[in-house]
Amino acid sequence: MATIESARRWVYLFTQGDTNMRDLLGGKGAGLADMTKAGLPVPPGFTITTEACNQYYDLGEDFPPGMWKQAIDALREVEREAGKGFGDPLNPLLVSVRSGAKFSMPGMMDTVLNLGLNEDTRQGLARLSGDERFAYDAYRRFIQGFSSVVLNIDSKEFEAILEETKERARAKLDTDLTATHLKDVVSRFKELVKARTGKGFPDDPLEQLRLAIKAVFASWNNKRAIDYRNFNRIPHDLGTAVNIVTMVFGNMGSDSGTGVAFTRDPATGEKRLYGEYLTNAQGEDVVAGIRTPQPIMALAQEMPQVYQQFVNIARRLELHYRDAQDMEFTIERGKLYMLQTRSAKRTASAAVKMAVDMVEEGLITKEAALQRVEANQIYQLLLPRFDEEAKDRLRRQGSFLAKGLNASPGAASGKVVFHPGRAEEVASRGESVILVRPETNPDDVHGMIAAKGILTARGGATSHAAVVARGLGKPCVAGCEALRVDVEEGRFSVDNRVISENEEISIDGTTGEVFLGRIPTIDPKFSEERELITLLSWADEIRRLGVWANADYPRDAARAREFGAEGIGLCRTEHMFFEEERLPIVRQMILAAPEATALEDELARLRRELAAASEHQKGEVKKRLAEAQGKYDTSHKVKDYYGALAQLLKFQTEDFKGIFRVMEGKPVVVRLLDPPLHEFLPRYEELLVEVTELRIRGDHPAQLAEKEELLQAVADMREANPMLGLRGCRLGLMNSAINEMQVRAILTAACELSKEGIDVRPEIMIPLVGHVNELRLVREQLEKMVKKVTEEVGVMVPYKFGTMIEVPRAALTADEIAEYAQFFSFGTNDLTQTTFAISRDDAEGKFLLQYVQRNILPENPFQVLDRKGVGKLIEMAVELGRKTRPDLKIGVCGEHGGDPSSIEFCHQVGLDYVSCSPFRVPIARLAAAQAALAGVERDR
Amino acid sequence: MATIESARRWVYLFTQGDTNMRDLLGGKGAGLADMTKAGLPVPPGFTITTEACNQYYDLGEDFPPGMWKQAIDALREVEREAGKGFGDPLNPLLVSVRSGAKFSMPGMMDTVLNLGLNEDTRQGLARLSGDERFAYDAYRRFIQGFSSVVLNIDSKEFEAILEETKERARAKLDTDLTATHLKDVVSRFKELVKARTGKGFPDDPLEQLRLAIKAVFASWNNKRAIDYRNFNRIPHDLGTAVNIVTMVFGNMGSDSGTGVAFTRDPATGEKRLYGEYLTNAQGEDVVAGIRTPQPIMALAQEMPQVYQQFVNIARRLELHYRDAQDMEFTIERGKLYMLQTRSAKRTASAAVKMAVDMVEEGLITKEAALQRVEANQIYQLLLPRFDEEAKDRLRRQGSFLAKGLNASPGAASGKVVFHPGRAEEVASRGESVILVRPETNPDDVHGMIAAKGILTARGGATSHAAVVARGLGKPCVAGCEALRVDVEEGRFSVDNRVISENEEISIDGTTGEVFLGRIPTIDPKFSEERELITLLSWADEIRRLGVWANADYPRDAARAREFGAEGIGLCRTEHMFFEEERLPIVRQMILAAPEATALEDELARLRRELAAASEHQKGEVKKRLAEAQGKYDTSHKVKDYYGALAQLLKFQTEDFKGIFRVMEGKPVVVRLLDPPLHEFLPRYEELLVEVTELRIRGDHPAQLAEKEELLQAVADMREANPMLGLRGCRLGLMNSAINEMQVRAILTAACELSKEGIDVRPEIMIPLVGHVNELRLVREQLEKMVKKVTEEVGVMVPYKFGTMIEVPRAALTADEIAEYAQFFSFGTNDLTQTTFAISRDDAEGKFLLQYVQRNILPENPFQVLDRKGVGKLIEMAVELGRKTRPDLKIGVCGEHGGDPSSIEFCHQVGLDYVSCSPFRVPIARLAAAQAALAGVERDR
Repeated sequence: MATIESARRWVYLFTQGDTNMRDLLGGKGAGLADMTKAGLPVPPGFTITTEACNQYYDLGEDFPPGMWKQAIDALREVEREAGKGFGDPLNPLLVSVRSGAKFSMPGMMDTVLNLGLNEDTRQGLARLSGDERFAYDAYRRFIQGFSSVVLNIDSKEFEAILEETKERARAKLDTDLTATHLKDVVSRFKELVKARTGKGFPDDPLEQLRLAIKAVFASWNNKRAIDYRNFNRIPHDLGTAVNIVTMVFGNMGSDSGTGVAFTRDPATGEKRLYGEYLTNAQGEDVVAGIRTPQPIMALAQEMPQVYQQFVNIARRLELHYRDAQDMEFTIERGKLYMLQTRSAKRTASAAVKMAVDMVEEGLITKEAALQRVEANQIYQLLLPRFDEEAKDRLRRQGSFLAKGLNASPGAASGKVVFHPGRAEEVASRGESVILVRPETNPDDVHGMIAAKGILTARGGATSHAAVVARGLGKPCVAGCEALRVDVEEGRFSVDNRVISENEEISIDGTTGEVFLGRIPTIDPKFSEERELITLLSWADEIRRLGVWANADYPRDAARAREFGAEGIGLCRTEHMFFEEERLPIVRQMILAAPEATALEDELARLRRELAAASEHQKGEVKKRLAEAQGKYDTSHKVKDYYGALAQLLKFQTEDFKGIFRVMEGKPVVVRLLDPPLHEFLPRYEELLVEVTELRIRGDHPAQLAEKEELLQAVADMREANPMLGLRGCRLGLMNSAINEMQVRAILTAACELSKEGIDVRPEIMIPLVGHVNELRLVREQLEKMVKKVTEEVGVMVPYKFGTMIEVPRAALTADEIAEYAQFFSFGTNDLTQTTFAISRDDAEGKFLLQYVQRNILPENPFQVLDRKGVGKLIEMAVELGRKTRPDLKIGVCGEHGGDPSSIEFCHQVGLDYVSCSPFRVPIARLAAAQAALAGVERDR
Repeated sequence: MATIESARRWVYLFTQGDTNMRDLLGGKGAGLADMTKAGLPVPPGFTITTEACNQYYDLGEDFPPGMWKQAIDALREVEREAGKGFGDPLNPLLVSVRSGAKFSMPGMMDTVLNLGLNEDTRQGLARLSGDERFAYDAYRRFIQGFSSVVLNIDSKEFEAILEETKERARAKLDTDLTATHLKDVVSRFKELVKARTGKGFPDDPLEQLRLAIKAVFASWNNKRAIDYRNFNRIPHDLGTAVNIVTMVFGNMGSDSGTGVAFTRDPATGEKRLYGEYLTNAQGEDVVAGIRTPQPIMALAQEMPQVYQQFVNIARRLELHYRDAQDMEFTIERGKLYMLQTRSAKRTASAAVKMAVDMVEEGLITKEAALQRVEANQIYQLLLPRFDEEAKDRLRRQGSFLAKGLNASPGAASGKVVFHPGRAEEVASRGESVILVRPETNPDDVHGMIAAKGILTARGGATSHAAVVARGLGKPCVAGCEALRVDVEEGRFSVDNRVISENEEISIDGTTGEVFLGRIPTIDPKFSEERELITLLSWADEIRRLGVWANADYPRDAARAREFGAEGIGLCRTEHMFFEEERLPIVRQMILAAPEATALEDELARLRRELAAASEHQKGEVKKRLAEAQGKYDTSHKVKDYYGALAQLLKFQTEDFKGIFRVMEGKPVVVRLLDPPLHEFLPRYEELLVEVTELRIRGDHPAQLAEKEELLQAVADMREANPMLGLRGCRLGLMNSAINEMQVRAILTAACELSKEGIDVRPEIMIPLVGHVNELRLVREQLEKMVKKVTEEVGVMVPYKFGTMIEVPRAALTADEIAEYAQFFSFGTNDLTQTTFAISRDDAEGKFLLQYVQRNILPENPFQVLDRKGVGKLIEMAVELGRKTRPDLKIGVCGEHGGDPSSIEFCHQVGLDYVSCSPFRVPIARLAAAQAALAGVERDR
């Protein structure tokens, strides 16, 4: 490992690199090289490559051979260009040392400014600038920054010295301190360094440079950076580049300044130069928020020529990169220097607007536009969000409390609650709750479920709170370090403000902001999202995957259609069963079912026996048959059973008519009843308590008897593992009357509407099939019913018959199953549960999140499809199914149907469509187009 | 379909066929042809082929073209040989028409005797035999048999006429009736036929023949035959042949007779002619049991020459077929005729003895011997069985009650109980119970579980009772039609005997016999089963698969070793946890675990945070760390947790020492803790009732508080689907101290024994792995512990590390998993559950048995490995695993490891061993050898 040839190139001058070298030079280095090449005013400098960083780690934190020498050579070249000397007391060159990875990781890694100063060069700087104070100020900033980043001394200790000096000098601002004050500060800073490190502050500029480079390399692996990469799925082996840039100073008087600007508004996407500018300041002053910056337009007033030069540069950069740029610049004594340009981070709506505008401006192609917007981002555009005006009002009133990590998007207001149990309690009264915790752990999940949003003081993007909240789809602001949360006392404080339990706050998970008070939310109107609609129409041109929606009610189907769904991929009939007026009927049916089906099975069995009986057995069998028939005819349960089914038939027929009407001309896949029947009954535990109470009290014998009967019925139906029990198609095979009722309702609805001239396209889907025979039997049953209904109504509606693939065995035997199925729909939720042998309900709170946090699983497989395991089964099923039936239509209707990474996989393995929740239809349309584009690129 | 060329051959004379034509001629036809060819005295006859039968069905129950003509031609040839004429009044040829499929289906299909009789030929028969009575007797038998089989008239109606006649004549036996009586019987029989069919009894012999052939074809598809084939896995498309055989009469005086004999004793396998003989009788008299037959030796007395001829024939037949034969013969006026020879059905112990004896006699090869014994059969040899002497004593005392279907092997005595609930109740008092039902259904399963055996009056080999009993491994006699069961009155009757609830009975599921009273059982001693031990030693020479056993205790391991197990493939540590003295300690550990692990996780988290903290954060993190450490140090739960673990460590170390000692020199695979921890706690429902009671009574507040705490703890651990929850390796990853304790116990036991000079071969197995990272982490943990224990004890024991493959994802990603596993063991129970998404506990009572009965599933996949689904996953895993690690050792440790069909599959896909319950080890040894032999045959 240690035999790296020193001939390898580790260092590039800005004049030597270009935009295609991002891997090697990092984003910042490539941008600086690019701008240098384009002749823009960039301070001279050079970049040490990401490869050098990786080698540095491979060598046990040692520079690779040759690197240091190349850096010194580059430094000599920079000296030549700048006309200054590094460490030259007469004409000192100062540099900044900046991290810069391939992908932007803002604020995660370290930077050192003003490097090259010591007492000699400080004097030179004072002479050259003619400003003693300026030189001392630069020196004390350097010592503080270098000590914090390189020597690991707490910055606060330096701040304390500065504050003390200010107090003593009765100075309000740093700028009120004189050169004399600052000279004192510098000497006290040096004493502090000696006290903390046992050595003097390093005076040799080359030693400073060497240490700073090592520190920047080291910052690639600090915890913040690792967490950030984990969250943003940036590989850990990219390494960071190090940029050494000639210092320019924006704080050399009123003809100097510094600023940050975007070529387009990063919040709205509007095409206008947008940014901030501060006269006579250095970059860190802008960041520190000590002085309030002016809008960039102020520069037009103050330095019209420089402004015009900047506007031109901004235009050139956007044209060059064909994307909105985020630029840093400094003006030193009237001369503009560009310090950075990079693709601008932007809000979801800005991303959409920029992409569409740039196509309309002829800047990029539609394909490029589609790739500019992260599919998951547009979810935000459809979520309720805070009214920005109301938010601004609160901000002006001083109700802004703090900003944390935007851990899970969305907006929520509610009463502050500190205990998860209390959150449940308050929420159960119908009140909105924000759960505030120092941090969360698995015991808090029930409270998180009850809350509208979650706010934590500690923890990053992969903290428990963040992961769970995203899983729950709830807004979360995490790691809001300004908060001091005192759970015992029931309050939290920010600076000196104390907020108590039950006060209302608002959190914006999209921005990370926290406000005191309630902010009204607004529901975005899809029809008004002009740019989004345009972008999605382009997506529709390019994608091959169909996008359908999961919807159980006409209102959901209508929304899905508005969002562009091309069909309903999953209509769950059980949700209809839970409606208030129906539940008693459903329960009547369920409680009568065991007796009714047992009697029917007995009749059927005896009829078969009779048919097969030898002559001398026949008499006895006939007798038994007559007895059984008598029992059947007089059974109350049989009457209850068929009475309830008849009522449900009416309800369901109307349900299906509603959905079919809304989805006229589009396919609607109706899944037959899936959950175990006991889900519709009262909970066993509750009944057990009631019965126990009644039994001990002994005062209501009749009620006790009734409850006991119910308890027994529920007990008979209980299952140890209901997910793997009597549900799915097993239900319909054991209770064929339920299946018949449902199929009759679907067909009757379809036929009657068809008679009205409505184009209805029903598809009947059988859940939880594991063996082809299950499907075959249901299909036979169905076909009988089709004949019956067709005759009754007098019209024939074409329909499709298919199955969920949600059991591993179905995927493994898809060739057999395709004999009887015209379509497959992957139920990836259940397929993931069975493939992993993980019950989602049980696992998420108990070990799954820990698995993800501890990197045992790369992601939660219920959110992002597991390609290696579940995906392999899907690929097998697609291949086997199409072998039997080349025109087999295949979709996915699990939650993964709305997840971009999973959608990409669906595209790759050749599915026909994905079906997702209505709100995710736009995401899926975009993600499907991106998958198609990625496929084209891969194939090139 | 109807264009069958009439040139095809549908009919073979006995002189034309041979032993290789079983497919075409059926077993009986081939045997008759064979004997004819060998010059044995067989009455002339011919066979209509099985193909003709299949064509008959394909043509909608019509003879294929040409068949009838060929039959007539053959009949003419038979006439010539017999020197008689079919329908010739002077010298009539009579024939029997007998079914005969490829595989013997005794009693399942129909036969007609004496065919060719009408009033004219009856007279001829009387003249020729010189016996008027004989001719009338033959005629009335013919009418009765033909009418029942061909005309579907209940036999009982004919019996009634005969009985009435006997009463009128004051005759005790049929033989007491005179020719005059029988003449009257014949004419009343004919009247009955006319009354029932509206037509006279068919007089034309050819018409009789045509109808009888059709009836035999039809009997292939009667219910009994279909059920029998289903149960015995005989394909339904083989068809039956029809044999037309010249009638010979054993009832023509004292120089005539009929009998059945075996070349070896079918019960013991002893090499001696064994059989029964009845002078002056026809075959049906033997079957009907009207007269008690004599042992075959009687023939040596009565007709020494014929006996000697028969002995010679028997010897020739056994030599020819190289297998024990079951022969039917008739002696007509001193002349011997062979009517059938076939491979003899035999008991398990006879099968073993015959196979071994024949090898020792040089009759067959060892390979042939191994294929002569059905592997599953030898299970019976190891089951407790009735003391035969005691059984005979009861029989002599008249305590034999009835014989039903031997639906599930084994012997059981107990109190008669009719209600499943009562069965549970009585069994819970420690009493043995036999559940007696008219038939069973899924509601009875709990009672079947409680009972020692099951007896039903109705239902065949695939009835609910039979299927469930075999599944439960309990003896069952089913379809015992002599029983009249009156559940309401709590009694059953056989003939005129009434047996009431609580009386003791004994059932022999191996023979189908039912006795009144208790019969002592005896446990067979394996070491005394000389022939079985010999046979299995041959199996060991031939099999490639290793045979290991699943055993949790030293006593089971010792038994397994005695039975020939070559290792322990699954030692379940959780069973040790359930022992009475340990359960309280286990509970203490479990109840303390959540707090202890949470505190540890917090400490670990804070230590990581401290390591990653920036300088200015460190102070605060240190403070929090100190607080957490304080909490941890003072926590009672932490003390409880580690206290309990320390105690368990001692127990487990001794447990493992016990097993390792017994298995010296053989591998022992120890599986780490698998079941969810809540399985060790009191049941939630019971606690809920207790707490509710205490709460309402309000008189024991302290006890209430304690129970409430326990209830809460149990509630926190409950899972909706525990099978898919926090269990398997997930447990050890979330509670690493438990894993460490177990691994330490295994290694300490191994190292300490090794120090004593004992050869210990531990293999540590991780359950429920779904992702390679799970295995990797446990392995890292393990290796640390290995180092520790090795240092402590001062010796190093080689060990293996591997995993169960019981989750589909593990099979799908076996290439990754094999990186960290030295062996795989397929947990086919769980793999079947997850591949099918079927919870066995829930399904077997609720739908799985129905699925099997209704042929939705071909078999219960928990008994016979599902090759298409689960098997496909196994094949994939084997291939992927060996790709990564060519020397990967692979076994199976689910219940399928003891099932012959599944063992064959394991052999085929190249596993290294199967591991099964100790009692099944001999089966597995034999089945593995059979699989190897089948493989050799296939490869030829």
